Amino acid sequence: MGEFDLITRLFLQQVADDGLTEVGNGDDASVHCLPAGESLVVSCDSSMEGVHWPDGFDWQQAAARAVQAALSDLAAMGAQARWCWVALQAVNGAALGAMGQGVIRALDAMAVQLSGGDCVRAVGNGLTVTVAGSLPSGQAMCRSGAQPGDGVWLFGEVGLAAAGLRMLMQKGDAGESIWLDAFAKVQARLDEGVALRQMGVRCCIDVSDGLLQDAGHVAAASGVRLALAADGLPQLPLLLEAWEDGLNLALSGGEDYALLCCAAAQLDAQLDALGGVRIGQVEAGCGVGVTYQNCVIDGVKQGFDHFAAAG
Amino acid sequence: MGEFDLITRLFLQQVADDGLTEVGNGDDASVHCLPAGESLVVSCDSSMEGVHWPDGFDWQQAAARAVQAALSDLAAMGAQARWCWVALQAVNGAALGAMGQGVIRALDAMAVQLSGGDCVRAVGNGLTVTVAGSLPSGQAMCRSGAQPGDGVWLFGEVGLAAAGLRMLMQKGDAGESIWLDAFAKVQARLDEGVALRQMGVRCCIDVSDGLLQDAGHVAAASGVRLALAADGLPQLPLLLEAWEDGLNLALSGGEDYALLCCAAAQLDAQLDALGGVRIGQVEAGCGVGVTYQNCVIDGVKQGFDHFAAAG
Repeated sequence: MGEFDLITRLFLQQVADDGLTEVGNGDDASVHCLPAGESLVVSCDSSMEGVHWPDGFDWQQAAARAVQAALSDLAAMGAQARWCWVALQAVNGAALGAMGQGVIRALDAMAVQLSGGDCVRAVGNGLTVTVAGSLPSGQAMCRSGAQPGDGVWLFGEVGLAAAGLRMLMQKGDAGESIWLDAFAKVQARLDEGVALRQMGVRCCIDVSDGLLQDAGHVAAASGVRLALAADGLPQLPLLLEAWEDGLNLALSGGEDYALLCCAAAQLDAQLDALGGVRIGQVEAGCGVGVTYQNCVIDGVKQGFDHFAAAG
Repeated sequence: MGEFDLITRLFLQQVADDGLTEVGNGDDASVHCLPAGESLVVSCDSSMEGVHWPDGFDWQQAAARAVQAALSDLAAMGAQARWCWVALQAVNGAALGAMGQGVIRALDAMAVQLSGGDCVRAVGNGLTVTVAGSLPSGQAMCRSGAQPGDGVWLFGEVGLAAAGLRMLMQKGDAGESIWLDAFAKVQARLDEGVALRQMGVRCCIDVSDGLLQDAGHVAAASGVRLALAADGLPQLPLLLEAWEDGLNLALSGGEDYALLCCAAAQLDAQLDALGGVRIGQVEAGCGVGVTYQNCVIDGVKQGFDHFAAAG
C-alpha cells in the first residue's frame, strides 16, 4: 500500500459518533437520523489551488478554510452543522496529508463529523466539501425573505480577507498581519446563524463574493432594493488608511464569510446585542444602492469573480 | 459574463420539485424534509480525467457515469435516491458544458434532483458527486451484515467494464462493443437495491473495485469468509473466449457497479426471481476464497487500484 492509500485510510477513519449516525464512515454510504421536526440542509463547494488559494499557500490552512467556507453556507441558513463529506484531490502524498489534517482540524474545531469522502490523485490540488446540518422545518433563512422596512445587518468584517489575498498574490508568504489572518483564518459564523434563526430572522446570506454582489442576490431573490451606507462598515477606517482602494475592498472584496441579514426593526436590540452592525435598510425597488458620507457611490467593481480574467 | 459563468448558471438552474424540498437550488444551501420514519443516506465520490476515465473519453459520458457510480453506493445501501450536489471542475467551457449535460442526463434518467453544486475552473477536468437518499430507519444494508450460512449473490456482470476500459486505454475511441458499453453506459442498480432491502437483505456492497476486493470488504466488516465459485459468473464464457486473462478480469476488473449481497437461504427464490446469480456462500473464517472448475484459484490480482502505478 502506497503512501497515498495510507493517508486516505487514516483520513477516512476519523469517526465521532453524534448520537444521530446509524452507519458512519467506512461503508458505501453513511446513514443518519434527523432530530424530530427538523429538515436537512446541504451545501457543496469546491476550492482549487491557483483559483481559490494562491500557489504556495499552506495546504493545511487552505483545506481548513475550504471547510469553513462550506460551513458558512449552513450558517447563512441558520442550520446546526452536523456532517461533512470531503473529496480530496492531490498531486502527491504531501499535499494529501496536509489537506487532510486541515480538514480534520477545522471539523474538530466546529464539532462537525467527517462522515465520508474520497481521496484521488489529480493534476491539481483541491477539495470539494459537502456539509449537512439541520434546523426546524420551515425556519430556514433564505435570500428571498427581505421586506421593505427591514434593517440590513452585517455580522463580521468585509474587505480584510481580500486585502490579505492580494498580499499573498503579490508577495507570496506575507507574514502575519490582520489582512492575512482575515483570509487564512476564516471561521464560519455558525453560532450567530443559529441565533439569528432562533430570534426569528428569515433572510440571510453569507458574504463570500463581495458585499455588493451578495446584497444584490438578496435584492433579486426578494424583489426589493437594499440601500446601504458604507460609513458604518466595521474596520473601514483601517482599510481606508492602509489601502488606496479601501472602500472598494470593503464593498466588493470577497472571501469574507461574514453574514448579511435583513430583519424587522423590532429585532434591532437583539441584533445589536449579538454583535451585528446595521448598515442599511430594505426599500421597495430593485438592486443595491450605496452611500458614503452622504454621497452616492457608483462604479464600484461588482464583486469577486474567479473567472473574470480567464473567462 | 463569460461562457463559463453562463454554463454554470444554466447548469445550476435545473430544478425539479419532489414534494420534499423546502429550498431548492439557488440559495446558500438546499433544504429538504425526509419522509416520516426514514433516515438520510449520503455518499460522495470524485471522478477525474486521466484517472477514472482516459483522456479523450467523451466528457458527457464520463460525467453521466460518475453520477451513476455515486448513485450505485445508494443502491448498495438499499436507499431510494433523491438528491444530488455536483461540483464540476473544468479546464474550459466546452468541458464544463459537456460534463454538465452528462450530469443532467443521468439525473433525469434516474429521477434524482440536482439540489446544488459548484462549477470551478481547474487545471484538470473532473467532478465530485454527492448523492443523498433515504430508507426506513434501521434497515440500511451494510458490509457488516453477512452471517455464516448466507448465500452470496451477484446482481449484474463483472469484468466487462474493465475490458472496455482497457480497450479505451489502448486504442482511444474503440467503437461500439459489449465491453465499451459496459464501461461507458453503467447504470446504478437502484431498483434492485430497494427490492433487496425490502425483502429483508441486510448485507450488500457495490462491486466497483473488483469482485474479490469488494467481497473482501464484506468478509472483513462481517468477520466471516466468503467462499466463491467463479463458474457461475454471468458472461464468464464470453470473457474467457475474448480475453486471455478473462477470469482475472471477472474477479478483479473493477468499474462494474454490480451489487453483491449476502442473504439467508429462505430468500433464495426471491433473489433468483429478482435476477440475481448465486456465486458462493458465507462461512466461518476470514478472507475470500475462489474456486473455478473445482480448483482453488490463487494469485489473482486483488482488485483495481487507481494509484498502484503512481503511488
